[in-house]
Amino acid sequence: MVLSSSPPSGFRDFLPRNLELRQKVSQTISRIYRSFGFEPIETSALENLEVLTGKGGGENEKLIFKVLKRGEKLTEALAKSEELADLGLRFDLTLPLARFYAAHQNDLPKPFKAFHIAPVWRAERAQKGRYREFTQCDLDIIGSNSWACELEIISAILKVFEALKIEGMTVFLNDRSLVYQALEQAGIPEDKRASACILIDKLDKIPREKINQELSILAGEKASQAVQSLLMDNSENRYAEVSPSSYAHLKEISSSISRLNKNAHIEITPSLMRGFDYYTGPVFEFRHPKLSGSLGGGGRYDRLLEKFGVSSIAACGGSIGFERLILLLEELGHSDETPGPKFFIAVFSEEMLSQTLELSSKLRNLGQSVDLYPGAAKLKNQFKYADQKKARYALILGPDEAKQNQIRIKDLKTGIESLADFESLVKLPD
Amino acid sequence: MVLSSSPPSGFRDFLPRNLELRQKVSQTISRIYRSFGFEPIETSALENLEVLTGKGGGENEKLIFKVLKRGEKLTEALAKSEELADLGLRFDLTLPLARFYAAHQNDLPKPFKAFHIAPVWRAERAQKGRYREFTQCDLDIIGSNSWACELEIISAILKVFEALKIEGMTVFLNDRSLVYQALEQAGIPEDKRASACILIDKLDKIPREKINQELSILAGEKASQAVQSLLMDNSENRYAEVSPSSYAHLKEISSSISRLNKNAHIEITPSLMRGFDYYTGPVFEFRHPKLSGSLGGGGRYDRLLEKFGVSSIAACGGSIGFERLILLLEELGHSDETPGPKFFIAVFSEEMLSQTLELSSKLRNLGQSVDLYPGAAKLKNQFKYADQKKARYALILGPDEAKQNQIRIKDLKTGIESLADFESLVKLPD
Repeated sequence: MVLSSSPPSGFRDFLPRNLELRQKVSQTISRIYRSFGFEPIETSALENLEVLTGKGGGENEKLIFKVLKRGEKLTEALAKSEELADLGLRFDLTLPLARFYAAHQNDLPKPFKAFHIAPVWRAERAQKGRYREFTQCDLDIIGSNSWACELEIISAILKVFEALKIEGMTVFLNDRSLVYQALEQAGIPEDKRASACILIDKLDKIPREKINQELSILAGEKASQAVQSLLMDNSENRYAEVSPSSYAHLKEISSSISRLNKNAHIEITPSLMRGFDYYTGPVFEFRHPKLSGSLGGGGRYDRLLEKFGVSSIAACGGSIGFERLILLLEELGHSDETPGPKFFIAVFSEEMLSQTLELSSKLRNLGQSVDLYPGAAKLKNQFKYADQKKARYALILGPDEAKQNQIRIKDLKTGIESLADFESLVKLPD
Repeated sequence: MVLSSSPPSGFRDFLPRNLELRQKVSQTISRIYRSFGFEPIETSALENLEVLTGKGGGENEKLIFKVLKRGEKLTEALAKSEELADLGLRFDLTLPLARFYAAHQNDLPKPFKAFHIAPVWRAERAQKGRYREFTQCDLDIIGSNSWACELEIISAILKVFEALKIEGMTVFLNDRSLVYQALEQAGIPEDKRASACILIDKLDKIPREKINQELSILAGEKASQAVQSLLMDNSENRYAEVSPSSYAHLKEISSSISRLNKNAHIEITPSLMRGFDYYTGPVFEFRHPKLSGSLGGGGRYDRLLEKFGVSSIAACGGSIGFERLILLLEELGHSDETPGPKFFIAVFSEEMLSQTLELSSKLRNLGQSVDLYPGAAKLKNQFKYADQKKARYALILGPDEAKQNQIRIKDLKTGIESLADFESLVKLPD
């Protein structure tokens, strides 16, 4: 039986040329995060299932790829109709970070500024532009409740966009605690506020009348209208009435961002929720006019670590949506060409292979990058290969050249051929 | 309920200081592989289960982490007692590469020189030094049957060891096809040769008498003795009798490695098998006296792509065991200290936060790396933090300094404090 060579549905392979831009962008993000004093961490791709399902992930919990128990444990689980899985693939990097911090807090600086660039997995219905394996680029500060955290995280992300020459980003900013207070004042009882937030969060996707209708069903006509005028009309200044102190706080973040990041446009947006259950304070999101949906976001999640027994620790984090960033860069015509090897060495004939190997080895020992064609083949095919690999110079060592202690060299930019001795090869410009 | 904060058994977290050496080594491997003309690829972490179980992986197939089907498909599988999993985590990088090549061969150079540095997962019994998630660093040449392939792959791996300043490596070399011919000449029937190879492969782990005994049971006393004298006494020159041409071939690889890699020690070892079912020709392995077991290896696997419908394509690959390489480097006392940020900026007081943010932003806009303490705290704690982060200079902006347009600076190497203006900060050495 011949097997299908496609990756599983919703998964991707990356060819060398697909990786050029991805690797450049990933290195840029890592460099900028590091230059802001964030340090890299890594966690295991698999987590114990109860860590992933123990609240906090909201809708994403339904999308966990679960790993089947093995051996006797599986037999037992099947016999007793118990849970068949014991592990799961992480669906984000925030939950793993919370577990990581709880496990290692005594070995970490306080506060801890961490970043993590890694794949996550979600069993989403496969569709265009949505993948089941994708990269996230998180940065977090654990152990500080200062609004300087929000500022640092937003500034670092904006600096990444700047380094990638992306202009015209807008930061949308809100405060979940303000929303909760507003809902309270609108007369929505505590147990219905989370559901109301989920409704408001869908403003982008569902017609407004439908949301109003559902809000009325949830909390009554009067409360629904109060919520509408407060949150959905973007009447930011009404926030000042809800809680002058929280609003002043939010304004401070907003004005500092504007002041410190010359090219950033920032808007306070009362309807911004950022989905996840675990946010407790300010939330933010990055958007670009060329792309619908967000390029990243984050917020404060002061209570997420409680599930691991770490009480009253403040935490704030943000993330760049790597796949969407790549999409935007391609949209904007950015690309990155990794230079090919400096030398391509063709093999003139089977008889010349040994001497040709010697030549490549000598160049490599001097630190030169050398792509050797493995074995003799038609020279036409070898040169086609050199083009595909974007080599700078092609070298051929035929028996005549070897006798004269010379190497035939072809400049693959100009097409000019010449003879050279070994010493002059090394001096060639890249 | 408080959840455990440990990663699952057999899995690891990496703290920033654990990642310093790992990232340096991974970058070195990538740089050297690239300089030999190999190009990076990436494949999905999950594969369709039939790809992973469809032969080739040998013992490793038993160690697959299988992913549970989802939704209706799971319900149906349970009802019909069918396979409960549809996906699995890759257990090596060779099988994914074979699938990748079959899928994308028309878009790739011929021959294709690829490398892939990525995690793999195996459900091994957790024990010290053996992990269920670990990194492999593969490089492969697909589409050439020249022995230059083996040479290129072995040379690139040796160059990595050289770049990491590891001396005293030995390359062990053998040829599976020679072993098969030897077994044939010893009178072992074709259908028993694979089992005989598996036995010989265990020479490291099982007492020799036990292997002899099992060989006798498998193929008779006489065949067993013939195998012993041929393969297990390391009497390399008997190989010349088995197949003069194959032996000459192997000698050519061996002598070229010696000639081209000054510091490499190479040995032809007839008992070397390298476990995997899929090897068809030369196999090799790297060892170091400081570490039991291998640091990597590889071989020719000319038939692995057949399962994806790609017939008669030659392939050869090698791999560095990343975790074992890290272990050896630690054993040898190698380490890598990533420099911390150039500036640590302390926050003198809540009142000075805004001006302090301004200072950090100005430095960052000039490309300086700046770790800002997020929010005001006791200065003693802030300086402890600066030490942990290995910052080079600490800056403090108090109200008195601010009035004079000065910044207080502490050289964290010498402990010397001074006052400076902004312009002179930028000129400080790293």
